[in-house]
Amino acid sequence: MENKEDQNLLQEEEQVVNPWEVKAKDGGKIDYDKLIDKFGCQRLDQSLADRVQRLTSRPPHIFLRRGVFFAHRDFNEILDAYERGDKFYLYTGRGPSSEALHLGHLIPFMFTKYLQDAFKVPLVIQLTDDEKFLWKDLSIEESQRLARENAKDIIACGFDISKTFIFSDFDYVGGAFYKNMVKVARCVTYNKVVGIFGFTGEDHIGKVSFPPVQAVPSFPSSFPHLFPGKDDLRCLIPCAIDQDPYFRMTRDVAPRLGYQKPALIESLFFPALQGETGKMSASDKNSAIYVTDSFKEIETKVMSYAFSGGQDSKELHSKYGANLEVDISIKYLNFFLEDDAELEHIKKEYGAGRMFTGQVKNRLVEVLNEVVERHRRARAAVTDEMVDAFMAVRPLPNMFD
Amino acid sequence: MENKEDQNLLQEEEQVVNPWEVKAKDGGKIDYDKLIDKFGCQRLDQSLADRVQRLTSRPPHIFLRRGVFFAHRDFNEILDAYERGDKFYLYTGRGPSSEALHLGHLIPFMFTKYLQDAFKVPLVIQLTDDEKFLWKDLSIEESQRLARENAKDIIACGFDISKTFIFSDFDYVGGAFYKNMVKVARCVTYNKVVGIFGFTGEDHIGKVSFPPVQAVPSFPSSFPHLFPGKDDLRCLIPCAIDQDPYFRMTRDVAPRLGYQKPALIESLFFPALQGETGKMSASDKNSAIYVTDSFKEIETKVMSYAFSGGQDSKELHSKYGANLEVDISIKYLNFFLEDDAELEHIKKEYGAGRMFTGQVKNRLVEVLNEVVERHRRARAAVTDEMVDAFMAVRPLPNMFD
Repeated sequence: MENKEDQNLLQEEEQVVNPWEVKAKDGGKIDYDKLIDKFGCQRLDQSLADRVQRLTSRPPHIFLRRGVFFAHRDFNEILDAYERGDKFYLYTGRGPSSEALHLGHLIPFMFTKYLQDAFKVPLVIQLTDDEKFLWKDLSIEESQRLARENAKDIIACGFDISKTFIFSDFDYVGGAFYKNMVKVARCVTYNKVVGIFGFTGEDHIGKVSFPPVQAVPSFPSSFPHLFPGKDDLRCLIPCAIDQDPYFRMTRDVAPRLGYQKPALIESLFFPALQGETGKMSASDKNSAIYVTDSFKEIETKVMSYAFSGGQDSKELHSKYGANLEVDISIKYLNFFLEDDAELEHIKKEYGAGRMFTGQVKNRLVEVLNEVVERHRRARAAVTDEMVDAFMAVRPLPNMFD
Repeated sequence: MENKEDQNLLQEEEQVVNPWEVKAKDGGKIDYDKLIDKFGCQRLDQSLADRVQRLTSRPPHIFLRRGVFFAHRDFNEILDAYERGDKFYLYTGRGPSSEALHLGHLIPFMFTKYLQDAFKVPLVIQLTDDEKFLWKDLSIEESQRLARENAKDIIACGFDISKTFIFSDFDYVGGAFYKNMVKVARCVTYNKVVGIFGFTGEDHIGKVSFPPVQAVPSFPSSFPHLFPGKDDLRCLIPCAIDQDPYFRMTRDVAPRLGYQKPALIESLFFPALQGETGKMSASDKNSAIYVTDSFKEIETKVMSYAFSGGQDSKELHSKYGANLEVDISIKYLNFFLEDDAELEHIKKEYGAGRMFTGQVKNRLVEVLNEVVERHRRARAAVTDEMVDAFMAVRPLPNMFD
């Protein structure tokens, strides 16, 4: 009996990663190796990144060469097929729960844009306004308004309108998409979704009904205006690894429906300013840099909140150097400072105690401001007409060119 | 312990009435009084039938004056409002699980046609092809084919195309209808649907997701092409009482969404030829009269299978008379022999032993053949173009005239 309680205690301390919660074990860091083991995905190693470079004849994205996208499922098969001349399509999405996106939200879209350009393939982007209505205290109208606002930020990432279809679930569910939802739902027991998502009997059936909605954009037949007669087209999903449970379920079901399993390429979480214990929280404004933040706000947040691996005094710092493993400025630079040589230099000098936290943070403020400023300019140019155009249900005749 | 087992045994013997199973207690008859108590609906008494006659200036339908539609929820409120000049709309439906309908399937449609004519109100008819795909071993294509075939039988009941919209879920789910599905789903916990429908953890989530689909045609906002700006229009649902659980759930949820509760008018089950222990089974061809049966088939089925309340010998029959309470021919005549005087005469003579089972069955064969023959002729005149016209998503400008 005692042993059993101990076990429960141990389990409670385990890290939690699912689409609604990301919590490191006991205030520590997310253990990504453990996550790969638990989820059963594969590590994305250097040889795969090299292969992408070779196949696309362009340098791999910073997120690929720096291991931000660190795990995958069958990405190698997508590349095998691509090498044989077989195209694929990309699928990613967003739950529109907040007006302003933070940098963490942009990661999958920035990377997806690179994949679209590099492989010259079409892309579907799902805005799960139904999910947000089901999980948050929002009206349908507000969910749909946020979906359109978020679509502007997504479009600002530079997607090619001739290859990209953005849709809101509330607008698009129906027809072939609904048929696939029902097909998927018929293959998944309630016990199964409880095992995957941890629903309880007190959860409403809207939650229980939702997983098929996120599953079916993985199947080309859900988009008859895009992929008629191409039911075997493979799908590659770039996403943060907390979305893996949805696609584990999808991959489980696919063969029973005679469909191809979607492949995945999965990212680390973008850490909160306060430290790498989970992903950023949309509810704590000071835990993240928003794409709407001014230079002043970015500066204040980085200077005040970015967790430092530097030592407590100048003397100690000079002696021991910074602990780069926990330093958030270094983590952020790893995501956004493109120049490999400069990053190496900073890490070396800061780690050796010859560079101080203030200097690193100053450089980070510049880098982040540049990213945010570029995004702000691009978003300002996105009109309502462009949103309508990206979201129009239409064929994309040149999507594979 | 013993007592508990006894209790379980007793519970197992209770009658079961839900959308997928109708079973009388221990081989006996369905106890409709108990059902009214358990479900919490109201008995439809003579005064309500009289009121319908007065308000519509036409004799009440045979199913109303003979108590076939025997229970209701808020039907009196619908009549109150109608008396004040407020219209309503009708909603009924069918799960298209088989090609040929039997007479039991026609009951709600025959009655709905009368209500549409009498009250001059619009009607929506849901074909739950998604439900049948989820519950039966059918492909989506086959479910949709059956839905169209069944639509022909429904149209053959004589509905007014200027007031009637028939839809298949697979075709129609989306937009405002899907939004209402998600709204309903958010209000109902998994525990709640388990309580209402008896789902288990091994049931697939398609079943758990379905109740909102059958719920939302109760809300006018699910049909923006029909009832724009009429979100307060009340809905009256004629159906067999096994569908009550869906609408108990719907009525529970409606006020929380700011919607009107649908009213119901609910029928007995049309008994199987073999006796009144449940409703007819589509899987036993000899338990029911199908609308495709020939005169010969009807004759054979009635003569061979219709359970008789007559006595075992001519002598005993002349002495004791028939037991009308269990005699299926009398039950069927009660549904379909329009002439009240003739029915009374048959019951009196048969009950007194002056008329014999063979004579009653002969008359029943004539009556049923006439119903079936009339239906067959009407159905033969229903073209694919008419099905398309009834199922077209369109406004109905004269639906309240």
